[in-house]
Amino acid sequence: MKTQETSELHQFFIQQLMDVYNAEQQLIEALPTIAEAATSTELRRAFENHLEETNMHARRLEKAFEFMNEPLSSQKCQAMQGLIEEGEEIIDDTEDDTLVRDCALIVAAQKVEHYEIASYGSLRTLAEILGYMEVATLLQTTLDEEYAADDKLTSIATGYINQGAEEEG
Amino acid sequence: MKTQETSELHQFFIQQLMDVYNAEQQLIEALPTIAEAATSTELRRAFENHLEETNMHARRLEKAFEFMNEPLSSQKCQAMQGLIEEGEEIIDDTEDDTLVRDCALIVAAQKVEHYEIASYGSLRTLAEILGYMEVATLLQTTLDEEYAADDKLTSIATGYINQGAEEEG
Repeated sequence: MKTQETSELHQFFIQQLMDVYNAEQQLIEALPTIAEAATSTELRRAFENHLEETNMHARRLEKAFEFMNEPLSSQKCQAMQGLIEEGEEIIDDTEDDTLVRDCALIVAAQKVEHYEIASYGSLRTLAEILGYMEVATLLQTTLDEEYAADDKLTSIATGYINQGAEEEG
Repeated sequence: MKTQETSELHQFFIQQLMDVYNAEQQLIEALPTIAEAATSTELRRAFENHLEETNMHARRLEKAFEFMNEPLSSQKCQAMQGLIEEGEEIIDDTEDDTLVRDCALIVAAQKVEHYEIASYGSLRTLAEILGYMEVATLLQTTLDEEYAADDKLTSIATGYINQGAEEEG
């Protein structure tokens, strides 16, 4: 790559890191309310575990800024704001202790997970293009955890299929 | 499941189908401009192919409404609107025929793909919970194509790593 290309791509990469750092901060603030709104204990625990992981993801991003000697900063992630608002609307629109509340929270949470999967996947590839291999490794670790969190939500939702079948049977 | 639970979940499912139907319509409108903005021929073709697929995804959703005897309708998907606006900003903020333009378009497009992956994955599971098996199959077919589109974008981005290495060598 030409020097100017590398410099433009580096700026874009830093800007995207700031975006996802803000997204994680918004999520850390929102997750306790979302966890409390869940009907099943299993789903509440999954959200609580994911809050702990999300704190770790924010720490890894701070390390990434350190590795690159860039000042730590964040820029408002509009997409995450919209996704969290969707989750809050679901809590308002559904009743406590219902199956539909849990299904709707899972849908909203999987949209959040996949927003993060797309962000971390792209950032990991950009880090590789730019040759920031330690940063790429940090991002890959978080990416793996986001995939696992998404799988956990699918497995909880799939449990409702069996539950429905048993109650019918 | 109790009858009331099933009915609430059915309503929620229909509402989510309308959301993703609108998301596909927004994408059909936006993709030609995004394809034209791409620097590499490979990326432009990937967007053009995905436009054809997206038309097919909209047709499948129409079939899903038919299967369930529900009137076809859509409701504004705010998240997709935000994601497309991000893509349009990227076109404004980057210069034609640059590597950073393509990398930024790929990041934006992968966020769109993952929004759709989350939507279709959740909808497929909801269809299974509700016992709409033909609809679940339609949704799974689209989900597989969204995953393939995302993989294609990752493989194009990975190609830039090798390209960077060759120019350096």
